[in-house]
Amino acid sequence: VSGFSVANLPFGVAGGRVVTRFADRVLAVGDVVADPVFERPALNDFMAQGPDAWRDTRGALTQALAAPEKLAMTPAAEVELTRPFDVGDYVDFYSSLQHATNLGRLFRPDGEPLLPNWRRLPVGYHGRAGTIVVSGTPVVRPTGLIEVEGDVVRRPAQRLDIELEVGFVVGVGNEQGRPIAVDDVDRHVFGAVLVNDWSARDIQAFEYQPLGPFLGKSFATTISPWVVPLEALRPYLVPAVAQAPEPDDGLRARRDWALDLELEVELNGTTISRTNFRDLYWTFAQQLAHLTSNGASTRPGDLFASGTVSGPAPHQYGSLIELTWRGRDPITLADGSTRTFLEDGDTVVLRGWCGTGEDRVDFGEAAGTILPATG
Amino acid sequence: VSGFSVANLPFGVAGGRVVTRFADRVLAVGDVVADPVFERPALNDFMAQGPDAWRDTRGALTQALAAPEKLAMTPAAEVELTRPFDVGDYVDFYSSLQHATNLGRLFRPDGEPLLPNWRRLPVGYHGRAGTIVVSGTPVVRPTGLIEVEGDVVRRPAQRLDIELEVGFVVGVGNEQGRPIAVDDVDRHVFGAVLVNDWSARDIQAFEYQPLGPFLGKSFATTISPWVVPLEALRPYLVPAVAQAPEPDDGLRARRDWALDLELEVELNGTTISRTNFRDLYWTFAQQLAHLTSNGASTRPGDLFASGTVSGPAPHQYGSLIELTWRGRDPITLADGSTRTFLEDGDTVVLRGWCGTGEDRVDFGEAAGTILPATG
Repeated sequence: VSGFSVANLPFGVAGGRVVTRFADRVLAVGDVVADPVFERPALNDFMAQGPDAWRDTRGALTQALAAPEKLAMTPAAEVELTRPFDVGDYVDFYSSLQHATNLGRLFRPDGEPLLPNWRRLPVGYHGRAGTIVVSGTPVVRPTGLIEVEGDVVRRPAQRLDIELEVGFVVGVGNEQGRPIAVDDVDRHVFGAVLVNDWSARDIQAFEYQPLGPFLGKSFATTISPWVVPLEALRPYLVPAVAQAPEPDDGLRARRDWALDLELEVELNGTTISRTNFRDLYWTFAQQLAHLTSNGASTRPGDLFASGTVSGPAPHQYGSLIELTWRGRDPITLADGSTRTFLEDGDTVVLRGWCGTGEDRVDFGEAAGTILPATG
Repeated sequence: VSGFSVANLPFGVAGGRVVTRFADRVLAVGDVVADPVFERPALNDFMAQGPDAWRDTRGALTQALAAPEKLAMTPAAEVELTRPFDVGDYVDFYSSLQHATNLGRLFRPDGEPLLPNWRRLPVGYHGRAGTIVVSGTPVVRPTGLIEVEGDVVRRPAQRLDIELEVGFVVGVGNEQGRPIAVDDVDRHVFGAVLVNDWSARDIQAFEYQPLGPFLGKSFATTISPWVVPLEALRPYLVPAVAQAPEPDDGLRARRDWALDLELEVELNGTTISRTNFRDLYWTFAQQLAHLTSNGASTRPGDLFASGTVSGPAPHQYGSLIELTWRGRDPITLADGSTRTFLEDGDTVVLRGWCGTGEDRVDFGEAAGTILPATG
């Protein structure tokens, strides 16, 4: 199986142990490297050991996997992966120029689509860490207070949407008062996951002024079970898009921090979006530098996500509100049915991969199925 | 010392152990009740045991303190209290009618001060849990991107402010998909603390549209070291203010959830604000019901705060931006100096207490001193 060669070696958790994946099999890292951090149900303690330990572990796994027949591995299909790390703080950015422009056009049709701060700094906000779930966890349709023809009623969300995102996981935090410099992020970032930031647009629309999204987002956020190490992504770090105006010194990078990562969204088996992460306006390095620029500390397990990744063409949009232009243009699935927003029973799968051939680096899947509202 | 009789018995952490306070002395709870949850540097595991265990522990402490001479206690002045619990998610509400009206007038002078959602639901957003610090921790003035006469410059915040708030700590969480009913919150809420939600108004002003406050708040939030049990606050639960329009069924309470809690703010020894918590428009019960109404789960250690508590009279405002009307009306301190916003070296102390006399229930202090910006 391509995508999970020794060029990848992602980390996950199964059965209370830290595991990695090689081809179509899963290996307990503790069977190769004896360290109590690998006998825990979360990657946090391993991530906190820092880049040298990350590289050493990768080296030991690579060496052991030169003779895979000597290792006791389990077929991936038989392994139930749990949430790979305990999430400290979760920050969601809004860093796709196309997405921010689309949403500006949809929500403020008479104004400039981008607000004055957007090109000056990576706009972001804190999301709910405690409701981040691993791929495969069902998502119950949320109920909330929604404005309907001038009245406010409590009902199940009818504009349930997805957001295709990429999230980065902090391994080594910074102390309060000591910001992370933009070109130092690889001393801190352990790896990356796919993120589906489920969004109830109708709940969000009524609640979000002036303090931002809250219950429209906080009911669930799905991440992929494998954390792909930044080390595995280095060959795919590429120059970022040009920024105008040029960002402030504190946000200007000398190294390449854009990531050439193919992304796709599947809804009930039909691919509804296909884009690439490399053109994101603000890189993850700029995001982490900004996040800490006021002196805020970070911890192992902090997650920060890109915001919806939308490319310039309509089939590259990363949310249904964009793909259907707020419901005006329904999309047709392979079975002939149409969608504006998600229906009960719908299954959404995000996928991502870097490169091609045997050594491509696969992110796996972030999948979720919508269950009907309760109560 | 009044304020810390057996009517209070707050919980804190010192030297890696759970402690309580009686008069002017501190007692290790584990010296009275043998349970490993009291030998940990955070209250989370104790809080997770639930209301019966909370009451039993309170009972055992009350009994033991009937003969305090038999207990090994330490003078409070000799004890260094650490952050009492590991914060899961931190949500900050915006539930004072006077505060929301004041900020609406200051920021949107030409519009209605309250947005259409404000009286329909408790507006709130997620803050940064990882930068919540215990009283006494210095606060470094944050640096950020600030709009100055049409230009954007990175500089230390000049409009550094406080927010007088009260926070509630979740002891027993709810599962994802199972909201907490408004009149059931005492099965979940362990207790309360004072919260100073330090705010850099100039950083906030440029960044906060459209996704809400981020770096203007995330650099530090100070909490008082003693968690006052909800059990100790029961005698001070009073009927809430009338709400118009009447809130939705899911937010309507039958029991009394407003809290008669006196609050004050001291700046460099001068009392600059004095108010009461009982008139908050949205009660903490409504806040927690709302927070979980979309199915969001909560965990032991989740903290949700009231938002700035401002009473109707100007001397009752809970932030400098309100007290000085955005700098127009400087306040004069006892030493003759004046303030619009905070200067380096300034010390702010929040205090709170319920009732009078020997059995009053004291929250203690949430204090912090401003250090100059670094870098």
